[in-house]
Amino acid sequence: MSKVITSRSEDYSKWYNDIVTKAELAEHSAVRGCMVIKPYGFGIWENMKSVLDKRFKDTGHVNAAFPLLIPKSFLSKEAAHVEGFAKECAVVTHYRLKNDTDGKIIVDPEAKLEEELIIRPTSETIIWNTYKDWIQSYRDLPILINQWANVVRWEMRTRLFLRTAEFFWQEGHTAHETSGEAVEEAERMLNVYADFMENYMAIPVVRGVKSASERFAGAVNTYTTEGLMQDGKALQMGTSHFLGQNFAKAFDCQYQTREGGLEHVWATSWGVSTRLMGALVMAHSDDQGLVVPPKLAPIHVVFVPILNKKNMDRKPDMDALVQKISDGLGEDCRVKYDDDDQKRPGFKFAEYELRGVPVRVALGPRDLDNGVVEIARRDTGEKVSIPIDNAVDYIKNLLVEIQENLYNKAAAYRTEHTTKVDDFDTFKDVIENKGGFVSAHWDGTDETEAKIKELTKATIRCIPLNNEQEEGKCVYSGNPSKERVLFAKAY
Amino acid sequence: MSKVITSRSEDYSKWYNDIVTKAELAEHSAVRGCMVIKPYGFGIWENMKSVLDKRFKDTGHVNAAFPLLIPKSFLSKEAAHVEGFAKECAVVTHYRLKNDTDGKIIVDPEAKLEEELIIRPTSETIIWNTYKDWIQSYRDLPILINQWANVVRWEMRTRLFLRTAEFFWQEGHTAHETSGEAVEEAERMLNVYADFMENYMAIPVVRGVKSASERFAGAVNTYTTEGLMQDGKALQMGTSHFLGQNFAKAFDCQYQTREGGLEHVWATSWGVSTRLMGALVMAHSDDQGLVVPPKLAPIHVVFVPILNKKNMDRKPDMDALVQKISDGLGEDCRVKYDDDDQKRPGFKFAEYELRGVPVRVALGPRDLDNGVVEIARRDTGEKVSIPIDNAVDYIKNLLVEIQENLYNKAAAYRTEHTTKVDDFDTFKDVIENKGGFVSAHWDGTDETEAKIKELTKATIRCIPLNNEQEEGKCVYSGNPSKERVLFAKAY
Repeated sequence: MSKVITSRSEDYSKWYNDIVTKAELAEHSAVRGCMVIKPYGFGIWENMKSVLDKRFKDTGHVNAAFPLLIPKSFLSKEAAHVEGFAKECAVVTHYRLKNDTDGKIIVDPEAKLEEELIIRPTSETIIWNTYKDWIQSYRDLPILINQWANVVRWEMRTRLFLRTAEFFWQEGHTAHETSGEAVEEAERMLNVYADFMENYMAIPVVRGVKSASERFAGAVNTYTTEGLMQDGKALQMGTSHFLGQNFAKAFDCQYQTREGGLEHVWATSWGVSTRLMGALVMAHSDDQGLVVPPKLAPIHVVFVPILNKKNMDRKPDMDALVQKISDGLGEDCRVKYDDDDQKRPGFKFAEYELRGVPVRVALGPRDLDNGVVEIARRDTGEKVSIPIDNAVDYIKNLLVEIQENLYNKAAAYRTEHTTKVDDFDTFKDVIENKGGFVSAHWDGTDETEAKIKELTKATIRCIPLNNEQEEGKCVYSGNPSKERVLFAKAY
Repeated sequence: MSKVITSRSEDYSKWYNDIVTKAELAEHSAVRGCMVIKPYGFGIWENMKSVLDKRFKDTGHVNAAFPLLIPKSFLSKEAAHVEGFAKECAVVTHYRLKNDTDGKIIVDPEAKLEEELIIRPTSETIIWNTYKDWIQSYRDLPILINQWANVVRWEMRTRLFLRTAEFFWQEGHTAHETSGEAVEEAERMLNVYADFMENYMAIPVVRGVKSASERFAGAVNTYTTEGLMQDGKALQMGTSHFLGQNFAKAFDCQYQTREGGLEHVWATSWGVSTRLMGALVMAHSDDQGLVVPPKLAPIHVVFVPILNKKNMDRKPDMDALVQKISDGLGEDCRVKYDDDDQKRPGFKFAEYELRGVPVRVALGPRDLDNGVVEIARRDTGEKVSIPIDNAVDYIKNLLVEIQENLYNKAAAYRTEHTTKVDDFDTFKDVIENKGGFVSAHWDGTDETEAKIKELTKATIRCIPLNNEQEEGKCVYSGNPSKERVLFAKAY
């Protein structure tokens, strides 16, 4: 397989796919719409999981596991929910195969399930059916549970990480005494997500609320974090839902209040998925390959010795030097020493560039004689010679600097690609030609939102939290509006 | 729900179920055969995962993710494999639901899959179908991959953790150049498992090889770790398979050898599952509830203040003392301070006993006056007064001692319940009345093995590794035999 990456300007979508496959993050499997996450990609996902899991626990949540399969009838219990999810489900109808008379394997018609089972597209229904048995009184509340799981939604057009039939995620499902507590929880988790995206993924996000038409099926309110990719399209990176009492009512889950009455339980759910891997790729990578923020990189620093047959005697010096620098960097720094002598240094440079390793240290015999090493940073490509004694401090600082630089670059891109617009011609022009977020007044109706989508493919990404209130006129209808919302084309 | 546990002697099976449900490890879900793992149980499973995951990584493995769904035709490619697994599969036949004319949700007959998909019962087929594209040359080997996943096997009779339709596990799948390397890998992972079971789960296991009839469907050789439960039944706790070239041949996976030839790749697979949770419960627990070895306990030490309305003024002293002891125990020690004043101390004692928290520290006002705390250990129930200044050291030592004691108790039980037998009447008597492992000669034939199973329900658990070679006669047929094997009734 050629390791050459299609350039962003030539074909953004092919560029994305090249990076995902050639940096060995993931590939399509033999099963339509399902991906294989390869070890290098999974390493990044594991780093994401580990940071998020800790933050969930730090905010009082515990993990648990609920069934993969959901009885068909459960989906129907919440009216909006079934509309949103029933249309794209993997349906289990039988529980046995058998040999037919030719010895071929067929589905055993006698092993038909009485009620079909759905592979979970999301778990609100099975979880609320469980919670109803766990909750009798206010003393049983709150319940603050998360699960790391795979889910299946039958997508017709799939893209690695961004839209796959099976994907991996976490879904938090919480139960509360009051509406206020549930709203607070939904907002807390939105902030946990946004903080993770900004400080670990180095992607600035807009925190906001979805318009009614973009809400999660079954939610009263959906909070979202919206990032901007390098092609000017927005990506919904994580959502947190205030579910009101919708699922508690659907599953008849009431609790005895402190005052002795009975009330339906208040709920939230919130999730981020392997889609974040797609965001990570699209936000930072370049035409040389993947760029991974240091805080999530499976390898922080790669050491490459510059050796050939003539100077192999210098190998022990290099081994010792790599050991010394690695020790200095400490356990938290994930280093790799690639001394495979079957591959030339130039090949290795290209390989680690493709894989987005933040820092590369090249060890040449002449450099060693001069007491220096060559340190290259992946984000800018800059190379410098650094005295060996300063290498540890230099690398430590560089990792911090790369993390910040990636964030700043993405933030500058977003600032440049957020445009205030007050008339519909400009709106169309910006959406079509410049891309990015368009901040414009909207009259608040579904009709206008639908019409704008039809005409421009742009959707309301969110109504930003703490949005400035200002009198204005809807960019499409001219009707009065009290605030601007963010529009963009989106993944 | 009553918190009283049925005693082991009264009804072992009910005792097991009481512990699993009342200590809040897991419960049955609304979906036949699928369990909900509750937060406390999941906490133990997370501890197991974290230790095992580190050991897999320390032995050179990386994690990845392969699809949940497997095309039906894949299962048929390896003849023995399909016989073993096709009979108990969840089959996905459709990918959409719709509203019928009455508004009811039905399976959309138009959305029938061309080829049915099976929810993975194990992943050899989908993984080898993937590996064949990853492997061209010896340079691509070895591949050392593990995945943490859920699998589904349609079981008719289910028991929480021990046998459920959906369960959670890890499955390692490795690819090698030579038969020798693959065998070495299978044995390495067997030893990783056995070491984990003995040093973390505190359960002594026999390492051995399965007889042909108990082999994994598709394996050349199955290694196993067999533990003994308190009812004298054996439990297969983890297996590691040398797959030979069976799957490489089924999926046409060949590599270019160092000599330039073409050869089929050699393989292993190995797994442990949430079944280990069942083993943990059955190996150590007692009639008061769960007993968890300290190394896997979600809570190591619980502090319970003995307070009532009259001595509430002592609360700040207790808070400070708990803080001091907790600080002394350090970060690796998971402590809980239960100062909920809505529950009486006696209620709390019973609760943490039921949940198997290894160490309980009771803080009474009079004890504090005397400069002591009362420390109770869960494994023996013993309580002692310890001077406050010695508490940290005492607890640290006690946790080590409990871990060792649990192992020693289980080992003594196993020694007592391993019986050498040389005639079939005694064999039947020991299996029926004493239980445990029976070490007996076997003539090596499937027929004898099947007959013994039919007559006694005992199966060959394994032929122990490094088994003593001795001339003898088969306990059933009288035919010559060169070594003893271990029989037992098993889960």
